[in-house]
Parts: sequence; C-alpha cells; structure tokens
Amino acid sequence: MSNAMVLDWSEISDLLQSIDVYEPMKEAFIEYSLGHAEIPPVGELLFADPPGEVHIKYGYIKGGSHYVVKIASGFANNRDHNVAPGQGMMILFDIKTGVPRAVLIDDANLTDLRTGIAGAIASKAMANVGVETASIIGTGVQARHQARCLLDVMPIKEICCWGRNAARLDELVQDLSDLDVRITACSDLRELTERSQLVVTTTSAKEPIIDVEWIQPGTHITAVGSDTPDKCELDPRILDKASIVVADSIAQNKERGEIHQGLKQGTVKEEDILELGDIFSGTARGRTSMDQISVVDLTGVAVQDLVIAEAVLKATKSS
Amino acid sequence: MSNAMVLDWSEISDLLQSIDVYEPMKEAFIEYSLGHAEIPPVGELLFADPPGEVHIKYGYIKGGSHYVVKIASGFANNRDHNVAPGQGMMILFDIKTGVPRAVLIDDANLTDLRTGIAGAIASKAMANVGVETASIIGTGVQARHQARCLLDVMPIKEICCWGRNAARLDELVQDLSDLDVRITACSDLRELTERSQLVVTTTSAKEPIIDVEWIQPGTHITAVGSDTPDKCELDPRILDKASIVVADSIAQNKERGEIHQGLKQGTVKEEDILELGDIFSGTARGRTSMDQISVVDLTGVAVQDLVIAEAVLKATKSS
Repeated sequence: MSNAMVLDWSEISDLLQSIDVYEPMKEAFIEYSLGHAEIPPVGELLFADPPGEVHIKYGYIKGGSHYVVKIASGFANNRDHNVAPGQGMMILFDIKTGVPRAVLIDDANLTDLRTGIAGAIASKAMANVGVETASIIGTGVQARHQARCLLDVMPIKEICCWGRNAARLDELVQDLSDLDVRITACSDLRELTERSQLVVTTTSAKEPIIDVEWIQPGTHITAVGSDTPDKCELDPRILDKASIVVADSIAQNKERGEIHQGLKQGTVKEEDILELGDIFSGTARGRTSMDQISVVDLTGVAVQDLVIAEAVLKATKSS
Repeated sequence: MSNAMVLDWSEISDLLQSIDVYEPMKEAFIEYSLGHAEIPPVGELLFADPPGEVHIKYGYIKGGSHYVVKIASGFANNRDHNVAPGQGMMILFDIKTGVPRAVLIDDANLTDLRTGIAGAIASKAMANVGVETASIIGTGVQARHQARCLLDVMPIKEICCWGRNAARLDELVQDLSDLDVRITACSDLRELTERSQLVVTTTSAKEPIIDVEWIQPGTHITAVGSDTPDKCELDPRILDKASIVVADSIAQNKERGEIHQGLKQGTVKEEDILELGDIFSGTARGRTSMDQISVVDLTGVAVQDLVIAEAVLKATKSS
C-alpha cells in the first residue's frame, strides 16, 4: 500500500468532533484575498444521462504544507438507487514533492461541511450585531449545515425554515429539532424574507426565488446555493439595492454565482465588489450601519477544501 | 474502508503484464476525434520553491463506464531526497453515479506508460513502412518507454539514442540492453537526425534542439516532450517544412506543445492540422509518399488516462 492515508467517510466523520476550523477557515480566506494562494479556475464536467456534474477545485497557499485537489460530484438520480447524490474525495499532496499524503473519500460531505462553516463565518461578519433570528431557505443538506454552523458562531435563538416541498420542510425541522433553539417552518417566503435580518439561501434554483421588493433595510443575505454559471437564487436587482456586496473569490464569482448574474445584468459593478478575506482581515470595511443591506455570495474556494482536509489529516495524527 | 479499489504502484505494476492497451488506446483517440469525449482544458498548478508542476487531466467518453481524473506532478528536486520526481494518481469514478471505483496511486508511472504507448502507435501510423531504425532523443523515463513500446508495434532493428548528458546516455543504453535490438549511443544530434527516418523526441527542452535544416525527406517526428505552453523541442519551421502535422488534440495543442509554438510563429495554420484519432480511423489521410516529412505532436489527452486506468481496474477483476 501507498504511504498516503486513505480514509472513507465513516472514518473521517469519527474524526470531525476533534476538529475546529472556524479560525483556520477565516485565516485561509485572508491569505487568499492577500494573493497568497494559487487557485486556478474550477474544473467542471457535465453529464447528460443520467444528469450529473463534477467540480474539481484545486490549489495551495504559498508557504503551506499541501496542495489540495477536491473532486465533488452531484448525480441527482442516485437517490433512485439508494446512493448518495454527492460523491467524491479530497486529496492532499506534499507541496514540496507532490507525494500524496491523504485520500479522503468523503462522498462530498467535507465540501458540505466547509461550505456550512464558510457560510456561518460570513453571516457573522456581515449581519447586524445582535441578530437572533436566522431564515434558512431550502431544505437540503446545506440548510442543515448552515443551521448547525450558525449556532456555533452566533447567538441565534430562532431559525425559520422555508422550502418549496412541504414534506421535505417538515423533515428539515425534525432533523434540526435537537438544536437548542426554536425551529419553525414558514410557508410564505415573502413574509419570511420581509421580517428577516439574516437570510441564508441554500437552494439549487436556476431562477431567482427572492424578490428585490421583499428585502428590508438592515437585511444581510448569505447566498450559498449558486455555485455555477447558471444557478441563481437572488433577483439580481438585490445586488444593486445592497450597500455591500461580497464575493468569496472575485475571480471566481465573475464566472459563477449571484455576482456573475449581477455583472451580466449590470446590477453590480466589478469595482464595487469586496472580497470575504478582506472583510475578515479588516482591509475592506463591512457593515457600517444598522440599515445597510448586504450580500455575501459564496461559490466555494479551494482554500476551504485545503483547510478542512488538512484538519482531518492532523486529527488522524493526534487520535 | 470505501468500496473504491485503492492500489499503489507496486500493486499496479504487478497487473501490467496482463494488460494490452494498444488497440483500446487507438479506439479512444478515434472516439475523441469523433467528438464523443468530454475533455475540458488541462488544469495546471505551478510551484516556485521547490520548483514543480502539476497537471490535472480529466474527462470521459460518452457511453463509457467511468470518468477519470488524473493528477500527475513533476518536482525535479525530489531526486535530492531519493523521492521519484513523478508523483500522482489516476482516479476512476462511475460515470452514472460519481461513486469512486479505483484510486490508482501510480506515482505518475501510468502517465509515462500511456505516453509511451501513444507515441508508439503514432510513430507506427505515420513513419514510412519498413523503417528499421528509430532515433530517440532524450535520456529520461520517456526515452525508455518510447523504445520499449515501439518494439511492441514496429519491426525496429536498431535504436539510436542521443542525450545532452553522456553519463545519462550511457545509463539509458545500459537500461535498454535487454531489448532484442541493437542499441547505440550517438554523440552528434545533427548527424543522427540527418540519417533518421523516425525521430522520437522526449526531452523537457524549452528551446528547440532539432534544427529545420537537419530534417531530410521521408522523416517522421513524434514529439513527445513538450506538453506545456513553454516547452519546445522542435524548430517551429519544421512544421512549415512538414507535409503532415498531426495533433493528439487540436484543442489542446493550440495551447500547448510544438503546434502551439508553430501557431504563435505562423509556421503552421490551424486548418492544416490533422488529429491523431482521424488518422487512426482513416478519416484523415496520413502519409501518402515516402518523401513526405510528418510530425505528430503529443501533449497527452485524458482519454489515454481513462484507457490505461480502466485496463488496470479490469485486470484486478480477472487476476
């Protein structure tokens, strides 16, 4: 056998309790925005029959220990065969020799987790201080991660959930019932959005589901769902209405996500877009008043994969 | 453990004797040139200190069983630490679900092997029938593979080797001494080229080492070494002098390899470039006279990785 550590999801998930990557994740975004990371454009493969998509994200932070390659796929029809829709792995290679150090066959779960973590720290950085209610749009895996991770970093007392499918919405509320906050299902997305100060969108919508008219002063939106050139959850005019628009990666969001849509439609200008790492470092100014509307658009950057994969590898050594 | 087969190089190399991929390799190039493959642009990561490069090649053939992701790196300084310069792996995923089926931690050896195979079948397809002497330029791993694979497919009686470094040239001749043909070392590249009808270049040169004046009528060149935007072994004017210029992938060779250099310098026009799979299928006409000069420029296409990785996976099932 190779010297590389090979772990599957059951082995990885056992290690996760000993991992806390909120601070390392923030640091990685800061390094990225400082230009200390090499992150080429996302690789993509599309499949027609059955429909599926693969994203390949890769890169490294200069001066770091590893380069990462992350392969994550989604094949929706897998559910018909009792196979998880998400599949894939993260691989760590020694940055000085290229020798493989870890093959984490995570079935795309680490991607979901690191996305939850990034969403939570972005929401915390941009939402009004003291916000106690979060609205989560969508009923998939990412809705669960955003809810759980938010509670790790913000003093949330209530989570309101909305989903197109009532049965899946009930299931989500059930799944989150172990959390020590009030979980409510909401049937009216407009009403929910209008009374929210923190909205986290996690759907795979290809047409906007949140209307610009619904957004009230003081609202922060963390848009997590759209990570491709065609997915889109927000009315692009929301970016125009917002005082602050933040990308996780300006280079990447020009090609993908809500900002990509906004640039195409002229509702946001490239020079007005801030980058998340600069918000975290204080280089860029985030929210300066209670009334501002802000949007963070997350498309997922390979530095996030690097951070979580390295944390798992480290945990194998201390366990 | 995951259900994916995980093999290291010692396990893979044990399986190789039972593998014959010359025909499948040809078929894969044919499928590729028919437009039946999805092969996005090569992913690349570069490292400054220590210097290194990583290529990520990925894709699939429509109607096939797997998609492949191949990661292959070269870190030249590894030799200082007794670590092989080439590292990496090929990963096969189920094309219908994305489930990982095989992780072949091949230390880049399968890439070397499939390159040798592609070079040999390209040389056979394009060189004059009856050529009995092959000249191999360069003294690295690929010189060895090209020599061995050529003998599998052509009636070669003598292999003439040239390299810049005399000690490494001696070593190469020694390493090939088990082959049932005459192996000679040649010290004068010009003289060697002038009397060759089949030249295979395998160096990592970044400046041309073969001059246009040296190329005689009837010569075929298989250019294997250059696979990046900056590497270059042939005087670009050779492409102008040649009657037939063949790319393994026109899309890819526009960005990499000898053809990329020739297009930049105007010594070849895009519309005059043929594709290897079309030569194999007969859709494009190859050599039509003994006096023609021809060049095949190989940059390495992910369908090759797919073929060899699938052959290894298949061999595990029958062994």
